[in-house]
Amino acid sequence: MGISTFFRAPIADNIFDVDIGLIGIPFDGAVSNRPGTRHGPRAIREQSSMLRAINSATKNQPFKNLYIADLGDIFIESTFDLVSAHNEIEKYFDSILIKNIIPIAIGGDHSISLPILRAMRKTIDKPLALIHIDAHCDTGYGDTYSYAKFTHGSPFYHATEEGLINPHKTIQIGIRGTLNDINQWNYSYDSGMRVVTIDEFYELGWKEISNICSDLIDKDYPTYLSFDIDSIDPSEAPGTGTPEAGGITVKEAIWFLRSLNRHNFIGADLVEVAPQWDPSYLTAFNAASILFEILCLVSKGKKI
Amino acid sequence: MGISTFFRAPIADNIFDVDIGLIGIPFDGAVSNRPGTRHGPRAIREQSSMLRAINSATKNQPFKNLYIADLGDIFIESTFDLVSAHNEIEKYFDSILIKNIIPIAIGGDHSISLPILRAMRKTIDKPLALIHIDAHCDTGYGDTYSYAKFTHGSPFYHATEEGLINPHKTIQIGIRGTLNDINQWNYSYDSGMRVVTIDEFYELGWKEISNICSDLIDKDYPTYLSFDIDSIDPSEAPGTGTPEAGGITVKEAIWFLRSLNRHNFIGADLVEVAPQWDPSYLTAFNAASILFEILCLVSKGKKI
Amino acid sequence: MGISTFFRAPIADNIFDVDIGLIGIPFDGAVSNRPGTRHGPRAIREQSSMLRAINSATKNQPFKNLYIADLGDIFIESTFDLVSAHNEIEKYFDSILIKNIIPIAIGGDHSISLPILRAMRKTIDKPLALIHIDAHCDTGYGDTYSYAKFTHGSPFYHATEEGLINPHKTIQIGIRGTLNDINQWNYSYDSGMRVVTIDEFYELGWKEISNICSDLIDKDYPTYLSFDIDSIDPSEAPGTGTPEAGGITVKEAIWFLRSLNRHNFIGADLVEVAPQWDPSYLTAFNAASILFEILCLVSKGKKI
Amino acid sequence: MGISTFFRAPIADNIFDVDIGLIGIPFDGAVSNRPGTRHGPRAIREQSSMLRAINSATKNQPFKNLYIADLGDIFIESTFDLVSAHNEIEKYFDSILIKNIIPIAIGGDHSISLPILRAMRKTIDKPLALIHIDAHCDTGYGDTYSYAKFTHGSPFYHATEEGLINPHKTIQIGIRGTLNDINQWNYSYDSGMRVVTIDEFYELGWKEISNICSDLIDKDYPTYLSFDIDSIDPSEAPGTGTPEAGGITVKEAIWFLRSLNRHNFIGADLVEVAPQWDPSYLTAFNAASILFEILCLVSKGKKI
Amino acid sequence: MGISTFFRAPIADNIFDVDIGLIGIPFDGAVSNRPGTRHGPRAIREQSSMLRAINSATKNQPFKNLYIADLGDIFIESTFDLVSAHNEIEKYFDSILIKNIIPIAIGGDHSISLPILRAMRKTIDKPLALIHIDAHCDTGYGDTYSYAKFTHGSPFYHATEEGLINPHKTIQIGIRGTLNDINQWNYSYDSGMRVVTIDEFYELGWKEISNICSDLIDKDYPTYLSFDIDSIDPSEAPGTGTPEAGGITVKEAIWFLRSLNRHNFIGADLVEVAPQWDPSYLTAFNAASILFEILCLVSKGKKI
Amino acid sequence: MGISTFFRAPIADNIFDVDIGLIGIPFDGAVSNRPGTRHGPRAIREQSSMLRAINSATKNQPFKNLYIADLGDIFIESTFDLVSAHNEIEKYFDSILIKNIIPIAIGGDHSISLPILRAMRKTIDKPLALIHIDAHCDTGYGDTYSYAKFTHGSPFYHATEEGLINPHKTIQIGIRGTLNDINQWNYSYDSGMRVVTIDEFYELGWKEISNICSDLIDKDYPTYLSFDIDSIDPSEAPGTGTPEAGGITVKEAIWFLRSLNRHNFIGADLVEVAPQWDPSYLTAFNAASILFEILCLVSKGKKI
Repeated sequence: MGISTFFRAPIADNIFDVDIGLIGIPFDGAVSNRPGTRHGPRAIREQSSMLRAINSATKNQPFKNLYIADLGDIFIESTFDLVSAHNEIEKYFDSILIKNIIPIAIGGDHSISLPILRAMRKTIDKPLALIHIDAHCDTGYGDTYSYAKFTHGSPFYHATEEGLINPHKTIQIGIRGTLNDINQWNYSYDSGMRVVTIDEFYELGWKEISNICSDLIDKDYPTYLSFDIDSIDPSEAPGTGTPEAGGITVKEAIWFLRSLNRHNFIGADLVEVAPQWDPSYLTAFNAASILFEILCLVSKGKKI
Repeated sequence: MGISTFFRAPIADNIFDVDIGLIGIPFDGAVSNRPGTRHGPRAIREQSSMLRAINSATKNQPFKNLYIADLGDIFIESTFDLVSAHNEIEKYFDSILIKNIIPIAIGGDHSISLPILRAMRKTIDKPLALIHIDAHCDTGYGDTYSYAKFTHGSPFYHATEEGLINPHKTIQIGIRGTLNDINQWNYSYDSGMRVVTIDEFYELGWKEISNICSDLIDKDYPTYLSFDIDSIDPSEAPGTGTPEAGGITVKEAIWFLRSLNRHNFIGADLVEVAPQWDPSYLTAFNAASILFEILCLVSKGKKI
Repeated sequence: MGISTFFRAPIADNIFDVDIGLIGIPFDGAVSNRPGTRHGPRAIREQSSMLRAINSATKNQPFKNLYIADLGDIFIESTFDLVSAHNEIEKYFDSILIKNIIPIAIGGDHSISLPILRAMRKTIDKPLALIHIDAHCDTGYGDTYSYAKFTHGSPFYHATEEGLINPHKTIQIGIRGTLNDINQWNYSYDSGMRVVTIDEFYELGWKEISNICSDLIDKDYPTYLSFDIDSIDPSEAPGTGTPEAGGITVKEAIWFLRSLNRHNFIGADLVEVAPQWDPSYLTAFNAASILFEILCLVSKGKKI
Repeated sequence: MGISTFFRAPIADNIFDVDIGLIGIPFDGAVSNRPGTRHGPRAIREQSSMLRAINSATKNQPFKNLYIADLGDIFIESTFDLVSAHNEIEKYFDSILIKNIIPIAIGGDHSISLPILRAMRKTIDKPLALIHIDAHCDTGYGDTYSYAKFTHGSPFYHATEEGLINPHKTIQIGIRGTLNDINQWNYSYDSGMRVVTIDEFYELGWKEISNICSDLIDKDYPTYLSFDIDSIDPSEAPGTGTPEAGGITVKEAIWFLRSLNRHNFIGADLVEVAPQWDPSYLTAFNAASILFEILCLVSKGKKI
Repeated sequence: MGISTFFRAPIADNIFDVDIGLIGIPFDGAVSNRPGTRHGPRAIREQSSMLRAINSATKNQPFKNLYIADLGDIFIESTFDLVSAHNEIEKYFDSILIKNIIPIAIGGDHSISLPILRAMRKTIDKPLALIHIDAHCDTGYGDTYSYAKFTHGSPFYHATEEGLINPHKTIQIGIRGTLNDINQWNYSYDSGMRVVTIDEFYELGWKEISNICSDLIDKDYPTYLSFDIDSIDPSEAPGTGTPEAGGITVKEAIWFLRSLNRHNFIGADLVEVAPQWDPSYLTAFNAASILFEILCLVSKGKKI
Repeated sequence: MGISTFFRAPIADNIFDVDIGLIGIPFDGAVSNRPGTRHGPRAIREQSSMLRAINSATKNQPFKNLYIADLGDIFIESTFDLVSAHNEIEKYFDSILIKNIIPIAIGGDHSISLPILRAMRKTIDKPLALIHIDAHCDTGYGDTYSYAKFTHGSPFYHATEEGLINPHKTIQIGIRGTLNDINQWNYSYDSGMRVVTIDEFYELGWKEISNICSDLIDKDYPTYLSFDIDSIDPSEAPGTGTPEAGGITVKEAIWFLRSLNRHNFIGADLVEVAPQWDPSYLTAFNAASILFEILCLVSKGKKI
């Protein structure tokens, strides 16, 4: 009840005081299959209002020491032009980052990670590390895919090529499904990313994958977290544009995220929730629960 | 897109400047059958964001000359105690009315009209006129109904008894359905209200009913408008707690509302939208469209 | 709330006292398109529990003077054999009719009218009159349709051929839609039935159609009422197996049924509600509302 | 059952023999609000398979004398680039029209009418007449709307400017709803189009509007029919991107379409069905029923 | 098919012979978030009719040796007054227990456990043992929560304080989620209850938790079982008022329940199924399956 | 997008070249509980169009070396007569098998396995081996069940009795649930089939069950695979007629199927998907994903 904001957080009125900003990006102009993630932020806001102040497992209380605000949705004017839309998103993040707000973006389709990373990269002196949980590597060569360069299947190809992320400090977890091309995700392997398929995830177990993250990325290294809801099994997250059978359970995702608390996250996103395919609101609810863990993770150790 | 507010209106930041306040009342503690109208305000907010600035039929632009704000939802502490909950609602409206804000309330169940009328009555020197569109007269003797005095079936019985409304200037439109007791709505007739059953509505037609309203209520007389979504046919508004077959169409409701522009509305409510029974969002969408007409009606001729 | 029975009527414990029996027939073994009407009785029971004792328009109180019971569902053993299933239904109705119970059957598919009429015919000395409201004439020659003789498209062909109904005292109302064969419903015309297409229904209006019924059937003549929910517009009754665009509204159906109170109904059925295609329960709710009018109609003037 | 094609029509195997081609255009790249019409063709195919060979009201049998085929969906490569996508559609229609196939397009968003009209215009020596049924005029100045020139709100502005349609032989029926700008549809009026608002539609009645069409457009004049499903009331067609309360009923639409049989239709489209907002399939079913009437209309008098 | 009763059990006609009574309690007057569990009993009845006589895993045939009846729903008059409603429930259970019927209650919200335990406590000479499976401890101090003392978040606080249950023989399993207050469930720990969080559940495994139950509660000790459906993961039980991500699977719940067959259960409840949030009926179906296991458990070893 | 075929495979135009035929069997005339699997093939076609060319885990590319076609749905004339319907199915498969097409059938109810096995048995000189994944053994004595001999609960009883399958080379995996009769599946045990209950499945693990398959069936032995979607947990496959709580996960099913790549499959079916109970399309999507694995399995090592 009440106006829907993320976790019933206040809507930022004085944006300079905000420590962590929750930002909706209602953009799905880069999807090839089922559209609808433009309605993702609202659906997650709605469901997140059932969540409360304290993480009963970790005792983390993100809202206690930090000013966490819902910054609303980015208003994108050029909804029909990918490149312009991405520019608008980048500029918005420039304006946020200059105020030292740690951004957590809620998509929208996965293409939004690219302009966010472009903005973030300007604030630090080296390519970011990336922990990327997804059913897909999203390192396709955008320019050969439906004649569009920057789709939701290619953000991390561009992010690497543009020097935004360090592929040797990038890990992609939960990869699976059917492909158009046997070489579709080769760029991930060739560029040096650590690809953890769903089979490897279950062979090694989430604790071991967490250790691999620690080995790969120093605890102080500025790291970005990108969580695509389609990493989760469709039975627990049917409301997404490109589902792939046989994914991670929400329980495992939560445990895994909690285990990442050694890292230094300077930003994060949660993408690809499509409410139209989610008649029981399960996807949005599980996404809100995961978002809460991401919020706990990002807020851990910040400020005082 | 964006944070859901009614018609994407601003959330009131300086409440003194507001001309018309849209107020959610997420309360359904007085329903006897299917609960869920506590989620009504949010569902209408969501759908209302598809509506825009100008009424193409009347050319009315409510947002142009008036400051119309979404005042959010009333936070009700005593959700388990009807009398206390009603007191909280009344106090909230006292605080709004003192600032000369014209209130439009979005329910919640129909019991909320009672505390609103209590607050409004204090601001004028005589009982209000009432135009009440509903499938039910809602003039049951509350105290014999499920042992609770102030349910959603009795607000206008109490409103009359407490001198809040003038029954001779009260018209109830759209009445129909099955009853528990053949004398169930006798109070309406006995107290002098004008009851327009659905059969009479279709016999006379909405234009004639509108004339009856004009005859009954002087154009300057302070008048309250109460619109229960269950007046509408269930085919066009399935998402409500107590549907009754064979109601008014949305088209007729809109035409009828537009014809009431001679009256002096000092407040209004739209109640009984229950989103759980509304899988296609049709009820909330139609409710938002009716709310827009109510807003046009209330804003007409106000301020300059 | 409570165990779902039709209108919360008692489940018959001493079947000899019952005046009117509401009987579920969960059989859909004769449908050619979308199955699921076997779940119709339950869905209508559930929704009918929102209806109450008194018809506010006609003041009819069917439950007051008569013992109206929910006789439960017929248990059909031969669900995979149409002819045997129909025999079971006929025998059940034989056992009901011998106790002078007036039956109102709730389907199930329309094929069930045939065994009911077979049973009813044995209790009177001449073919019944029939008022039949439907999108389809259901007078197909069963034996050429999907190699099955007694489908849901042919009951009234067989009923006529077997001398169960008098085609000259049969009226079919609401006929429309697309056809497999231009001669598909010729049997209706050739046998002397009065066919009222949807176009004629709207040209003449329901009052005139009611007059035609009076002219066609003497007020004392034993008459059967068969109401197929697909006569109603799909917008108001999507949950049915063979929808046809552009049908009667529920409001018109209710008004028309009320106008039939001059007739002598000795039995009735309401068929073809398929809950799987009815996510908002609208069809079952409207069907329950129509069933209440049928109940009022059948109970009118019975007993003292 | 069977592979879903429009009306179970054959999939064209020898495209030269086809008289009327049913063509899916799964494109929604030009919508500003709710996406999803790219799934419209499939949903209409699925529902259309419940329709049959003969129109029971008009006795029209479109499949009898003409070879009507489902030509499948246009495969659009440039889904992220409006201008290129429109070019692809135009080229496809060029290839169809050269074979003397009469096209009936099933959208997809309303922007697709523009490239279709571009292709059609090349085959005749003057601008087409247009009968356009819609809640919106769709004559917005595209270039100021979300920075995109050719959206689903502007096709008929461009069609007029490019000389594809004759505004003096254009009629727009069913216009209503809320607007962004009081001058939003001025182009329709200024260019000489006949705009029939929903209020005028109900004041005059569909028969009179049909007469206006006859007066406006000579019976031999090559005419295009564009039917936007949002012309229909949301209660009967909730599954669309930009619903507007209070529209035409399906019954009226069907009657009106049948009355247009004096005109010479050389092409038609049915657009804006969005299945994600259509949980009971009502919109797709009603759209399929309307499409059947359009098919009857277009096939009338063609060939022998 | 047939009238919906739990597992198609007979409706009790001679209540003295009944061994185990299945009792619906359609009460949700104590929920703070999403209402609707008042419709839980009906939804579970409907789904339970797909279950059959024999547990294929344990070979238990509860209906064979015992007379198990559906006692219908408790009719609660004071639906708007928690304390009175609880008194009515308690009195009903008094009347059942005096006839030596073992009750299995189907909620409704979790507040109903309190009046049931009050009634049960009168029949034995010491506080009951409790095995409680839930996402929440439900030991909140009711009087500070929304100004209501006896909500669905506090039954076991009151049950302990009133001496109805022995906290040292109480185990709470599956606890997790977000909290309003870091001390929210402290009463559980402080009073000596054994709290098994979801993390501990997965660390130790259900077999070990079952052993802990055995250690804590003697096999002859009179024990009550309370199963809140929100203990189950929302992916398998979305239809509940207060979901918490990351719960027990149905499979584990079933295995765990079967392992409790050493205990002496004298009563049980299954609560918090809210059908409105359950579009695929999955929650009600899984609840019915769990209820069947509870029935097997309670019936085990009873009578002869 | 495009006309829905299985995996967007071509519709067979020259049936002699086809290596593997995907065949829809829209028949549910043999179900005792919830009907609707006749719509299964269409729903799976629709969802399968989201799957692509390559199995990312096994690198299998079934469409690369083999001509895999969608052969459409079998048109069954005798939909109301089980025996005739089965004869029609058998004849269809005779016509396919004579062309050396490997059939993969998509149901429809499980009774269809019987006529398929009858046709397949004629092409080889000995009873087939069978790997059967299901919640039910489906070896009921058909003739005592609802008076029909060949229902969806008995195909493998008949298949054994008719010498179509070798019970000593038959394994049934995932068996669980409630039963009508404690001896219901005794025929499986008595005839020598290997029955793996769900408890045994989880005790031993899928790898060990796979080994048991290898031990039981020689790698060259002609083997049939029958996959009933109700083997999967209802949380991951709610859309089926006879769900049973606590089943196999999709992930385990996929892993298990991949491990069967040593066997010589000469045909397969996937049955019992009922889209009406599947509002989020999860069942059809998971079924399509499993079908893809079956296709990989069957195509493995075929042709060159």
